[in-house]
Amino acid sequence: MAPTPMDTLKTKMAEVLDVRAAINLLQWDLEVMMPPKGAEARGMQLATLSALAHRLFVTQEMEDCIKAAEDAARTPDEKTLAALTRYDYTRATCLPEAFVQKFAGEQSKAYQVWVKAREESDFRLFQPHLQTLLGLLREKAEYHGYAESPYDALIEDYEPGMTSRQLDAIFGDLAPRQTALLQRIMASPHQPDLAWLDQQWDADAQWTISEEVLRDLGFDFQAGRQDKSVHPFSTNFDIDDARITTRLNPNELFSALTGSTHECGHAFYEMGFLKSDRRTLLAQAISLGIHESQSRLWENAIGRSLPFWEHYTPLLKKHFGAQLQGVDAHAIHRAVNHVAPTFIRVEADECTYNLHVVLRYEIERALVEGSLDAAGVPTAWNEKMKQYLGLEVPDDAQGCLQDIHWSHGSMGYFPTYALGNLYAVQMLEVIERDIPQLWEDVGRANFHPLLNWLRTHVHRVGRRMKAQELIESISGKAASAEPYMTYLERKYAPLYHC
Amino acid sequence: MAPTPMDTLKTKMAEVLDVRAAINLLQWDLEVMMPPKGAEARGMQLATLSALAHRLFVTQEMEDCIKAAEDAARTPDEKTLAALTRYDYTRATCLPEAFVQKFAGEQSKAYQVWVKAREESDFRLFQPHLQTLLGLLREKAEYHGYAESPYDALIEDYEPGMTSRQLDAIFGDLAPRQTALLQRIMASPHQPDLAWLDQQWDADAQWTISEEVLRDLGFDFQAGRQDKSVHPFSTNFDIDDARITTRLNPNELFSALTGSTHECGHAFYEMGFLKSDRRTLLAQAISLGIHESQSRLWENAIGRSLPFWEHYTPLLKKHFGAQLQGVDAHAIHRAVNHVAPTFIRVEADECTYNLHVVLRYEIERALVEGSLDAAGVPTAWNEKMKQYLGLEVPDDAQGCLQDIHWSHGSMGYFPTYALGNLYAVQMLEVIERDIPQLWEDVGRANFHPLLNWLRTHVHRVGRRMKAQELIESISGKAASAEPYMTYLERKYAPLYHC
Repeated sequence: MAPTPMDTLKTKMAEVLDVRAAINLLQWDLEVMMPPKGAEARGMQLATLSALAHRLFVTQEMEDCIKAAEDAARTPDEKTLAALTRYDYTRATCLPEAFVQKFAGEQSKAYQVWVKAREESDFRLFQPHLQTLLGLLREKAEYHGYAESPYDALIEDYEPGMTSRQLDAIFGDLAPRQTALLQRIMASPHQPDLAWLDQQWDADAQWTISEEVLRDLGFDFQAGRQDKSVHPFSTNFDIDDARITTRLNPNELFSALTGSTHECGHAFYEMGFLKSDRRTLLAQAISLGIHESQSRLWENAIGRSLPFWEHYTPLLKKHFGAQLQGVDAHAIHRAVNHVAPTFIRVEADECTYNLHVVLRYEIERALVEGSLDAAGVPTAWNEKMKQYLGLEVPDDAQGCLQDIHWSHGSMGYFPTYALGNLYAVQMLEVIERDIPQLWEDVGRANFHPLLNWLRTHVHRVGRRMKAQELIESISGKAASAEPYMTYLERKYAPLYHC
Repeated sequence: MAPTPMDTLKTKMAEVLDVRAAINLLQWDLEVMMPPKGAEARGMQLATLSALAHRLFVTQEMEDCIKAAEDAARTPDEKTLAALTRYDYTRATCLPEAFVQKFAGEQSKAYQVWVKAREESDFRLFQPHLQTLLGLLREKAEYHGYAESPYDALIEDYEPGMTSRQLDAIFGDLAPRQTALLQRIMASPHQPDLAWLDQQWDADAQWTISEEVLRDLGFDFQAGRQDKSVHPFSTNFDIDDARITTRLNPNELFSALTGSTHECGHAFYEMGFLKSDRRTLLAQAISLGIHESQSRLWENAIGRSLPFWEHYTPLLKKHFGAQLQGVDAHAIHRAVNHVAPTFIRVEADECTYNLHVVLRYEIERALVEGSLDAAGVPTAWNEKMKQYLGLEVPDDAQGCLQDIHWSHGSMGYFPTYALGNLYAVQMLEVIERDIPQLWEDVGRANFHPLLNWLRTHVHRVGRRMKAQELIESISGKAASAEPYMTYLERKYAPLYHC
């Protein structure tokens, strides 16, 4: 029997996806296993395979193949597959080759200067490069097209379907309420005693604890592995081969574990796609925001809950008994939920994290729309830090130079971090309704009902919906700040008696 | 400046070589890191990338590019590069697509049946598949062409330029002399006491010892790594990224270490190509025989020498002091050079190993030339085991079914193992002349002079010579059995007082 147009499309896309899996492995190995001198050759291998994956995808043959599959598609999945391939193909082909090369060249220069600028804490070094990248980002937005703001065309790379109009509505509601809550918390006299945290925590014990928790959560070590790396991350080469990493720091009791639960949430998502979708565009994440919702749900909503720590305090004490004399589950619960405004986004807690994001969103949108110049970034940054977090930024390194994203010419990415937090809690509201014994389960380290719920309502969906459709289908409501603020109030008002 | 034809050829080949490096990584990860459930997807990824590497290479564009480079080549290196690419291109394109597919299909069936046949120790199950593969191997030989024997066309895949006529001369001299020496050794009353070896040897200590020895040998852990795997192997993704593996078996005191030194020899070769040859066909092994000569030189000539053990016995005793009471360097030297005919090739010692190879060579050559049918294999095997090693083969599993090679349709590969042994010792004769203090150096764990010699005379040559040219350029003589027999006599006659 001759292959159908859909068979042909699947075969061609499977080839592209296999090359992308190899790229993921080259990248994983680079960060986890590769001896340092391998870096030069690895860079060339990654460049070659990335170019190859692109070249295999953007052929005339592929376009013909998509057209034939669109015409022949009958089932909903066939129609979705054809549409997703068309969407990705259009995104991949609408940028002229010369533009892509120019962008890559400027990215590379900007990144190198950013590294130096951050070392010297001097934004002025980076400023002209940011200005150049902004010009290119606006050009990119024009190639892609947009209805209202050029920024929307950039968000699309990370959170398809999301717009700055929607973000304005969500963040405009969220930010002042989070700032107000933060002020109440900071004004409260009921601050936790954290002196006991200031000890050395054996790294091997941290590793053992994180592995035991991963096992309990349901991470299948037959279909994945955890390793150590400088920057924790997750990746996958197949539904049945997901890799996560964590960082061990003897000064930090919780960072390896919270990192593990975070990355485990990401891995669960990619391990939960339907096996029948394997090697197709259906077995992919909807968006970075949805991806982040999965990591945040496990890291924060579960991994920083009181029932979780009622169960795991004994495990912690098994390894750190002498160091945890007189520290109980409640004390640990307070420690892992300690709120304090800080300069650095990646270290921020549940009450401040989104404020870091809103600040960046407002700045990068203004930059892309042209109402702010690169030169104005430090001032804008420092004013907003004062406004949202009440902090005086001491220098650019701890301010507008802290993140790598802009040096890569990535704008529109930051909002997905906050969206992940909001989506997670919006899902949690429904999960608490669907699984009435959820917190008793968590207190018994029985995470199966939760994981099964996520498998059914999120993971197996694959890329069949857009993020907003998924959130509405789950919660019956559009994504909003409301569930997250309710969650923060319920959790932190009692913790801080405020 | 427009790229020269040679630049274009290099760029195109670098792309193919980058994809091959990615294939090597996919394979390494599969054997060393991959969680078991990842196997299915990994198989598909390997198939896709292998097909892609082939497809990228065998284009009309590549042929045009080779032609242009041949015409434009001026320097010796340019001429060699053009010629090597032409050679590889011709080998890669002269088999019809339909034949390659048929062969792959039969290989796959034959391999599965071989696994079962070996389990049941019943050659008759495998026999029809071997017969089918033989037909295809003869067909393959016809496509490639040959002067005297179709077997020569098959050797070419592994040891370019080698012929069955040369092998007849070398092995015809070697085999009876090795058998005669073996008989003298077995008849000697001066057999080593090995009872002390029958203990449990802590695997972690074995690992630590092997790492320390690797470091001493000069293995650069900044440009390579050692891991554990079921089957020890070496691979590389770049001159500066070589990976070796070893197997830890608590029943075997020496297997991890001898495995490490063996794989280290392979890695040294690939880490020693010229950096300026990186990502070209010049930075490749001449042949499997030359590759094996590098592993055998380090494993056997060095790693089983008395000076080596005079130096490393204290290290062994540091880790296994209580278990090695009364065992000195001489006892260890005798243990690691214990000679005994056995059924299994991969466990064979320096005095018997080549005999296993000669036996296989004679059988597979007869099979390919048609003077022996698949049905005659067990009888031929068992007769030759009697003739060369004096052993009665108890069953097919320990006889003609033991090796995987024929189940893959690989014939012409086995001779390279014995050639490696011979080449290594033929080099060693010259090395001993060029480095008069060689054995004092080895006794001080100063391996730099030896490694430098190999870098200069073997590694940096890359693929600029054929194996026979290299051996002649080094030793002034064609490859022969003579140096190896002299080596065995000098080493084993004193050890066994025979």
